[in-house]
Amino acid sequence: MSRTSGLDVPVEIVLNRAREAPTLSDQIAHQLRAGIKSGVLRADDRLPAIRALATRLSVARTTVDTAYAQLIAEGYLHTRAGAGTWIAQTLPESATVVASPLGSALNAAAGSSRPLSEHARRLAEVSTTLLPQKQVPLAIIAPSEEMSPGRAWTQIANRFGRRPWRHAGYGEPQGYLPLREVVAEYARKFRGVHCDADRVVITSGSQQGMTLCAQVLLEAGDTAWVEDPCYTLMAATIAHRGVLTVPVPVDAEGLDVTAGMTLAPHAKAAFVTPSHQFPLGMMMSMARRAELLGWAARTESWIVEDDYDSELRYEGRPFPSLQGMDASSESVIYLGTFSKMMFPSLRLGYAIVPRPLVEAFAGARLLADRHSSESQQAILAEYIREGHYEIHVRRIRGLLQKRRQVLIRECERQLHAYGAVLPCDQGMHVVFRLHDHIDDVAVATPLRQGGLELRAISPFYVRNTTMRGFMLGFGGFTPEAIKAAVKTIARALAQHVA
Amino acid sequence: MSRTSGLDVPVEIVLNRAREAPTLSDQIAHQLRAGIKSGVLRADDRLPAIRALATRLSVARTTVDTAYAQLIAEGYLHTRAGAGTWIAQTLPESATVVASPLGSALNAAAGSSRPLSEHARRLAEVSTTLLPQKQVPLAIIAPSEEMSPGRAWTQIANRFGRRPWRHAGYGEPQGYLPLREVVAEYARKFRGVHCDADRVVITSGSQQGMTLCAQVLLEAGDTAWVEDPCYTLMAATIAHRGVLTVPVPVDAEGLDVTAGMTLAPHAKAAFVTPSHQFPLGMMMSMARRAELLGWAARTESWIVEDDYDSELRYEGRPFPSLQGMDASSESVIYLGTFSKMMFPSLRLGYAIVPRPLVEAFAGARLLADRHSSESQQAILAEYIREGHYEIHVRRIRGLLQKRRQVLIRECERQLHAYGAVLPCDQGMHVVFRLHDHIDDVAVATPLRQGGLELRAISPFYVRNTTMRGFMLGFGGFTPEAIKAAVKTIARALAQHVA
Repeated sequence: MSRTSGLDVPVEIVLNRAREAPTLSDQIAHQLRAGIKSGVLRADDRLPAIRALATRLSVARTTVDTAYAQLIAEGYLHTRAGAGTWIAQTLPESATVVASPLGSALNAAAGSSRPLSEHARRLAEVSTTLLPQKQVPLAIIAPSEEMSPGRAWTQIANRFGRRPWRHAGYGEPQGYLPLREVVAEYARKFRGVHCDADRVVITSGSQQGMTLCAQVLLEAGDTAWVEDPCYTLMAATIAHRGVLTVPVPVDAEGLDVTAGMTLAPHAKAAFVTPSHQFPLGMMMSMARRAELLGWAARTESWIVEDDYDSELRYEGRPFPSLQGMDASSESVIYLGTFSKMMFPSLRLGYAIVPRPLVEAFAGARLLADRHSSESQQAILAEYIREGHYEIHVRRIRGLLQKRRQVLIRECERQLHAYGAVLPCDQGMHVVFRLHDHIDDVAVATPLRQGGLELRAISPFYVRNTTMRGFMLGFGGFTPEAIKAAVKTIARALAQHVA
Repeated sequence: MSRTSGLDVPVEIVLNRAREAPTLSDQIAHQLRAGIKSGVLRADDRLPAIRALATRLSVARTTVDTAYAQLIAEGYLHTRAGAGTWIAQTLPESATVVASPLGSALNAAAGSSRPLSEHARRLAEVSTTLLPQKQVPLAIIAPSEEMSPGRAWTQIANRFGRRPWRHAGYGEPQGYLPLREVVAEYARKFRGVHCDADRVVITSGSQQGMTLCAQVLLEAGDTAWVEDPCYTLMAATIAHRGVLTVPVPVDAEGLDVTAGMTLAPHAKAAFVTPSHQFPLGMMMSMARRAELLGWAARTESWIVEDDYDSELRYEGRPFPSLQGMDASSESVIYLGTFSKMMFPSLRLGYAIVPRPLVEAFAGARLLADRHSSESQQAILAEYIREGHYEIHVRRIRGLLQKRRQVLIRECERQLHAYGAVLPCDQGMHVVFRLHDHIDDVAVATPLRQGGLELRAISPFYVRNTTMRGFMLGFGGFTPEAIKAAVKTIARALAQHVA
């Protein structure tokens, strides 16, 4: 984020002076609070003097004074007589930062005389705190020979991949046309997405899709809604663009759109997981979908729909994609991935974008890394075109359905004293909700150190929550491994509540 | 770039009020001029009123007035009585923009009611103006079966790639350790780079390396030196980070470091191609290297060394990398790629970074796209480890040396009336310098439309130049194809000067 605003801390404050906007001091307080929560502002960062900030923002000194006082009262700031105002070291409980600060490995690189920028330090924290899951039970994704695309893939790869240098020049940033064609057909057929190949942009997976969205749709200083709870790496991606992420609560119907409109009426974009909320698992209701699309059309905001595991629906009829419900075809960017159904090492996914944005996405992709491997794109295109992908998805769904039943049954059998599995018909994980008094982090931490990949739910929330629970992945593990893992959890819970 | 500064145009002005800094009006003029040249400010953008900008920057009105008057005199701005100050539609000749504005394809997407941001429009221009070269003579890179890594690659790919899902979880953003190990060994041995595997970050090629550098080293509002002329996509990559790129002239010894220190003494980074200046081809002299390293150490600035085709040295002894000459090991980020020697579809390259920056690069990579395909990394690691890469490079070098001789001989034979080949001992292209009065663009444009990939040299320059010439790639073509292409150029030149 630019420091050119001249503040002591790298936050940019944008004031809306329209008559219907919140008071200026509320806006200042809100943006500072969001900056603290998102981790852009950190403990011991000094805020500019009241007079200096007031001058810069062209507001009265009392306006800034009121905002600071509010945040001091809330515990976000503290003040030292004569010395200024600082971000508090101990933040209020609701201010869990997106990427939790860590005594960075950088400090170990002592002897370095050259100071790192604040920005570089925060990028370093991303890599030292957002570690990939170990490939042990009950990780969400893990290697499993039975789930591999198998011989059909190998044969096509041999046929197409034997001379990868045939695709020897630089390729199209938007993606290899034959792959865009089969992706468009697939998304239309199975997810009701409005599209043709011209609107498909091939990515190297959902993460790049998210980054491209942040780059094309948002600028530093903008505000965006994210779900609370949400995927930590996604929120970090947006925050590192210099965007203020406003956490909007989800309930049983998904994103609370009304709450979003109250918290950040002028957000430029909403990042959502409507078919399978991450991490909780519910589907966004039709009423909420209509409300969200209405908001986006009215305010000319964007919706980013991350449809990360839509192939894995076990029961009931799926809703079509949110993108497919958008009559204007102008509001929604739909993100899909092949990492989950094929294998992460493939590094291929896609974005389906409103037509006026296609060139901008292609330009952002060109600047990012030119394009995806054309030989890999050619292999995948042929695999889909010959029908192997559909067969593969059906086979995996059957296999995962069985593993999912084993996991749910084991939870009911071994863990019923501590909570229950949340209803959810889709994906590669379920959420076991604990009774409110059980500390999910305290139980999960020693188990993770002991070699079990158990993710506690509460850290995914930015706001204070009574939700406690675990994410339990079942995709990569045999029934025996799943049973054993649940037993380990049961033992730990028994010890914890004892 | 953030628009939060409240200006009518998206430029951020950062003033250095130190006593040794240039005058404030010079700083304002310089930053506006750079913004216009880089394409961030565009024809008909309106500048803020003098009073408003003076208030915002906390300077006297005469300071802004002086800066505007200077730029009006230079032809960058014009003013309409009572209406304000605007970027001129016809810019002075020296202000060639980095990515030339084009009637974007977006305007064709009429019917769209939703306005695109300025930022999205510029990303779109990147994809509509910076098109990849067609794979026809005399493109710099083109498919060629003889230059492929061949059977050794296929065998290892079969062995390692048969079950790519073995690498099924998410990998390390920094890269697959066995590949980092062989890359470090290779860079130490052949390029004298100070490194071990801990300092290697695997990228998906030079372009991603450049983007990661821009993200880690620079922030919006910073200034960076680029060579003039330079690789257009590289300059666009930095400019899209919101950084002002200051073009620094090159002469026969490479980058003119003294000129850089005069033009932008407070630049945060210098992007250079010391072993084979792109596009002109000269090597940076030892004196200039020492001067550049001294500047970086003194000012705590970064040097990004793009060593994009160092394997292809035909005559004379190469200098070691600039990185290897940096006693502090703290100033230089070294970028290498496998696209050029293997095939672009491989999408693998590397950055070797100062130790304190490793985590920041890994974090930026995680946010960008997580990591490169582990199965591809494993295949390449084995290919290098077994010694095939060295053998491949030697073979390609011999093959290209012959093609290069054919091209140079044909230029001497058929084009001697129009200019001469610039001295250059490295790479996949040579530069044919035309006599100054011949218009390289006028000759190249119809030939490109006619199916010959001929790049004129003058558009690579930002500043006014008398240099006219062509980039001639010889890597992908048979001697017969090279002869025929030179003949076509000779005919076109004869017609042009007639």
